[in-house]
Amino acid sequence: MIRIVILGAGNVAKHLFKAFMAQEELEVAQVYARNPKMLSYFGANTKTTSDLTKIETADIYVLAVSDDAISELSKQLNLKKGLLVHTSGSVSIKALPKGVRRGVFYPLQTFSANRIVDFKEIPICIETTNKDDFKLLKHMASAISDTVVPLSTKQRKAMHLAAVFANNFTNHMYHLSHELCEQKEIPFELLFPLIKETARKLEGLSPFDAQTGPARRNDKGTIKRHLAQLKSKKQKKIYSLLSKSIRTTYG
Amino acid sequence: MIRIVILGAGNVAKHLFKAFMAQEELEVAQVYARNPKMLSYFGANTKTTSDLTKIETADIYVLAVSDDAISELSKQLNLKKGLLVHTSGSVSIKALPKGVRRGVFYPLQTFSANRIVDFKEIPICIETTNKDDFKLLKHMASAISDTVVPLSTKQRKAMHLAAVFANNFTNHMYHLSHELCEQKEIPFELLFPLIKETARKLEGLSPFDAQTGPARRNDKGTIKRHLAQLKSKKQKKIYSLLSKSIRTTYG
Repeated sequence: MIRIVILGAGNVAKHLFKAFMAQEELEVAQVYARNPKMLSYFGANTKTTSDLTKIETADIYVLAVSDDAISELSKQLNLKKGLLVHTSGSVSIKALPKGVRRGVFYPLQTFSANRIVDFKEIPICIETTNKDDFKLLKHMASAISDTVVPLSTKQRKAMHLAAVFANNFTNHMYHLSHELCEQKEIPFELLFPLIKETARKLEGLSPFDAQTGPARRNDKGTIKRHLAQLKSKKQKKIYSLLSKSIRTTYG
Repeated sequence: MIRIVILGAGNVAKHLFKAFMAQEELEVAQVYARNPKMLSYFGANTKTTSDLTKIETADIYVLAVSDDAISELSKQLNLKKGLLVHTSGSVSIKALPKGVRRGVFYPLQTFSANRIVDFKEIPICIETTNKDDFKLLKHMASAISDTVVPLSTKQRKAMHLAAVFANNFTNHMYHLSHELCEQKEIPFELLFPLIKETARKLEGLSPFDAQTGPARRNDKGTIKRHLAQLKSKKQKKIYSLLSKSIRTTYG
């Protein structure tokens, strides 16, 4: 049985809490949040506190707070025992205090309130400063996910950056597409099958091979007509830059 | 029974051929392609020809050729009877010859060789110049798809442009992400669950509400570190422009 304390009460904390609670070999001993109002979600199923001096002892302390808060909160914690891990893709393991057993537990997924995610499918990238802690952290990660991957801070930061393109920027493409549909009063929902197929294709084709469209064909006539259709400077700029980037990708 | 002649032998032609052949109420009487070598795929199941003077009579002639070829091929066809439709998102219905019954049959999907797609799920946008032809075209479209939508040329062109963002540019984001993974020797496959969830999220959330990431939070520190991590000018330019676009979207 691994005893866990979660520090934080946002989306990541909630999703992790649920996933940990579903495993017999894991026990969430306590959830901490600075703001007591944030703790109501957890209170029915575990102990909660807003007082840093009353943190329970645990095998693993999971920091599920914003990147900026990691360093300061982990200092205030003043841990004597246990493994302290943060859950950020872009923060170094060294942001945790020197005298503490340190680790990173980074689930490669986007978490929204009200979205159920299947943790079994989510890759968890882990890192520790010593071997025994790696085993312990791997044990916790493997309990909730089928894909546990050791990544160094450097690799994890690269992964996080790659995820910004694959997730954040992709979602912004959806938004720009949505905006165009709204401007012309056509239903964005019609694009859902196309959007899903675009994602699914990657299982059989590299994105390099899957690329289609006017920029891929270097179809200057269509590109010109599209640019004329776009109303805002921002849309035109993005269309031009990405079309150019696609063109140069294929020489 | 609707008799169909398909003109063209590329990916769209192949996928449509398969979908039409699976329906009892539709008959593919013939497939035409300029290059006889392209016809082997179809030859076992229907008549084929490379001679424009030997086109069979049909209720509907489906032009599944590149945008640039639509106008010229449809003139050469010299049809006396039947409804002539093209399958392009970005070409006007008026690109078809004046003296002919004209229509558009635009399946909103990306077609690759070797990818099986479920036509039932693919929205088909249709347009005709007269009402009876609309009924006929709707009949053919409804036989293979559950979603048949009337769209004017103007709306269809807007839809096609929206699809460039949702499909072509999204795929390019996947490519840039893939490139970053390769540069750092981390497996791109780890991002598949994230990519799929990003697409799936749209069913419950608008892309406006689904947006996450450093640009959404206006997290300048992370953005700066990401820019420093990127090696190529192109990557930096795209990262900057899209981050800025996200920032301004949320004010």
